[in-house]
Amino acid sequence: MRENNPLRIGLIGFGCVGQGFYNIVEQQPGLNLAITRIAVKTPGKARPLPAECFTYHADELLADPDLDLLVEVIDDATEAFRLVSAALRQGRRVATANKAMLARHLPELVQLQAEFGGTLLYEAAVCGSIPVVRTLDQYFSHEPLRAVSGIFNGSSNYVLTRMSEEGSDYAVALAEAQALGFAETDPSLDMGAFDPRSKAVILAAHAYGVFLAVDEVLNLGIEGIAAADIAWAAAQGQKIKVVAGLYRLPGGGLTALVTPQLLGPESALYGVEREFNGVVIEAEFAGTQFLQGRGAGGHPTGSAVLADVLALRRGLRYAYAKRPTAPDAQLTHGLELEAYVRHPDAGVLREVLTWLELPPEALHTDAHGSFATGAVPVQQLWAWRQELRSLGVFVARQGEVRPVAVPAGAALATAELV
Amino acid sequence: MRENNPLRIGLIGFGCVGQGFYNIVEQQPGLNLAITRIAVKTPGKARPLPAECFTYHADELLADPDLDLLVEVIDDATEAFRLVSAALRQGRRVATANKAMLARHLPELVQLQAEFGGTLLYEAAVCGSIPVVRTLDQYFSHEPLRAVSGIFNGSSNYVLTRMSEEGSDYAVALAEAQALGFAETDPSLDMGAFDPRSKAVILAAHAYGVFLAVDEVLNLGIEGIAAADIAWAAAQGQKIKVVAGLYRLPGGGLTALVTPQLLGPESALYGVEREFNGVVIEAEFAGTQFLQGRGAGGHPTGSAVLADVLALRRGLRYAYAKRPTAPDAQLTHGLELEAYVRHPDAGVLREVLTWLELPPEALHTDAHGSFATGAVPVQQLWAWRQELRSLGVFVARQGEVRPVAVPAGAALATAELV
Repeated sequence: MRENNPLRIGLIGFGCVGQGFYNIVEQQPGLNLAITRIAVKTPGKARPLPAECFTYHADELLADPDLDLLVEVIDDATEAFRLVSAALRQGRRVATANKAMLARHLPELVQLQAEFGGTLLYEAAVCGSIPVVRTLDQYFSHEPLRAVSGIFNGSSNYVLTRMSEEGSDYAVALAEAQALGFAETDPSLDMGAFDPRSKAVILAAHAYGVFLAVDEVLNLGIEGIAAADIAWAAAQGQKIKVVAGLYRLPGGGLTALVTPQLLGPESALYGVEREFNGVVIEAEFAGTQFLQGRGAGGHPTGSAVLADVLALRRGLRYAYAKRPTAPDAQLTHGLELEAYVRHPDAGVLREVLTWLELPPEALHTDAHGSFATGAVPVQQLWAWRQELRSLGVFVARQGEVRPVAVPAGAALATAELV
Repeated sequence: MRENNPLRIGLIGFGCVGQGFYNIVEQQPGLNLAITRIAVKTPGKARPLPAECFTYHADELLADPDLDLLVEVIDDATEAFRLVSAALRQGRRVATANKAMLARHLPELVQLQAEFGGTLLYEAAVCGSIPVVRTLDQYFSHEPLRAVSGIFNGSSNYVLTRMSEEGSDYAVALAEAQALGFAETDPSLDMGAFDPRSKAVILAAHAYGVFLAVDEVLNLGIEGIAAADIAWAAAQGQKIKVVAGLYRLPGGGLTALVTPQLLGPESALYGVEREFNGVVIEAEFAGTQFLQGRGAGGHPTGSAVLADVLALRRGLRYAYAKRPTAPDAQLTHGLELEAYVRHPDAGVLREVLTWLELPPEALHTDAHGSFATGAVPVQQLWAWRQELRSLGVFVARQGEVRPVAVPAGAALATAELV
């Protein structure tokens, strides 16, 4: 309505999300959008459009003054940052879906927008079709939030749902997810919880005004999960989900971590199954909110990209309104959580107990073998994270992260007894 | 940040929502907002602020050029329309939470904004703290939607949850809800589903660009519900919820209705309990979205008012982007639904069957008495709606509303047989 000429879009990347976005735009001529140039990396690949529709040099789009905005939906985070930051230096409007790039470079990207007047939106980077970035940034811009947590990775959630439904092993469920296109050929980013960690870092900027260093946030994945773990959870009426969480601590600080978590039906995330994503926002005044939707896929994610494109046309910019009041981050030190730990080899498990400062009595045995439960310092999980991953130890939390209680009273009582 | 002077707000109404909003603003001085005048109706009432904080003439706020925006949160829909429309004629920025007023006057209010340049936002009018109006208006502005349905009334939902948990009767659960402040002393707007009908009409403007005439939308309430109905639903693994729905019909039209509905656990609304609200958005490209949050209460609704105030400061206006492509409304004619109908008096029930064009065989008997199930024309529910309500007949739908199949093929087959 407001514009007579169509908005000219340069599209960088024509994979699942790029094609989904293109397809939605083509089906709705009333949008008054024109994807006038498309850049892809590899010449000669089979694509649903004729070769003359593509350029193989994304820099040509950057150099094209006729493009009103750019959509960047490539896989390569390094190249994405090069392109997006160059576009922002030109003061351009850009939509991106690249969470790994954003999680690593958010402070610079915010700075470039302030300096050169461009705009970057990235709703599609977190939870696919769920409008969680703008809800946190715009609607909850001044609402104090106790916690933002959720299932941010559809691939690992799909694997967990299938293991739970079928009693199948991790490898079987993963192969099925890969066959259906719900998991990458290299599943480590998804199954190792690196992908949801990036999303948590992005949301922290909007929910709390905090720029977290992505490499300093603890992420534990599900590569070591076995049918025994699902069965143990089920026996207690619980499911295992990979939960990415941002939590205000009693002292006012913010902590963040991404780990498997045992959840009962009282959690809204308990019912988030398969490739769906869900977000719980615990707000001081608004109360608890829950959002659920498709976390991946060409059309759902393409739809989120389109929403950003239309928002860029309207002039939306993220407010990052909580930056001036951002709390300190407290990521590993002085925190503990109730952990469930399992490994098929009891010898390995006993060694793991010493790493995690769990006493030998923490060890239990069930029909599937040995496991341990108890309060574990987050710092120890952090320190041994690579060993835990490479040995295939499965670790899940059983509740909230909490500051370690200073046992002053306990010590005093002991002294008095003596 | 952007404004050095605080935004001066005139607050009209100081009930539950007004006080909640005031309280949140007072607790956050960093917002740079100042509620400089408050208008209330009744002098001499006990209030948490001294009497000199109030005026008893809302028109004084309209006449005050120093106010940057007005917040209208009074109960009286007629007076609210008078005030809000007068403010919009002055080109002012206004936030309101009055759903009954909005549902009746939306076309005029949109017209007044276009004519005089003012802005009206009303997130708090629908589902309390859930940002569903802006999500539909801004995020899904160009996404084709198959359906928008939900639990939009926390009072009736609270009653249904308690009946389900306790096996209690309607009157007992309603009295409890009233004692806890979850239901009004006159519960007819909530229990008769007039309140969620208003909310559905508001959402139709944003989700589909359609201005529905609120009095033409069928609403059936829960005043006639009994423990027998809850038990019958539970026996099939279902719950009864009051669902307000906007549905695209196969022919492209839009229908709307608000009735009790039998839902199984496959529905996201099944788990929405007590005073919570939930909305399911079935989107063409984005897939199915679900939003859940507190639908009422001073702080949750006050938080939504605050979000509107901050959005007004930023310059947000609703886009009503689907107005040019709005489908036709088809509210009662040519539609049918699978109904469950019960009344304690079998004689009354047999009479009701004739109204609803159900055959005598539709009657069943269980331990609690007689009930009927079968396909019912929506037109008949509409025509007999007042009688059904006054007799206390309980009607719930068991699935989707659908266009009546034209039995041309069937008629032909019969003719051939003859």
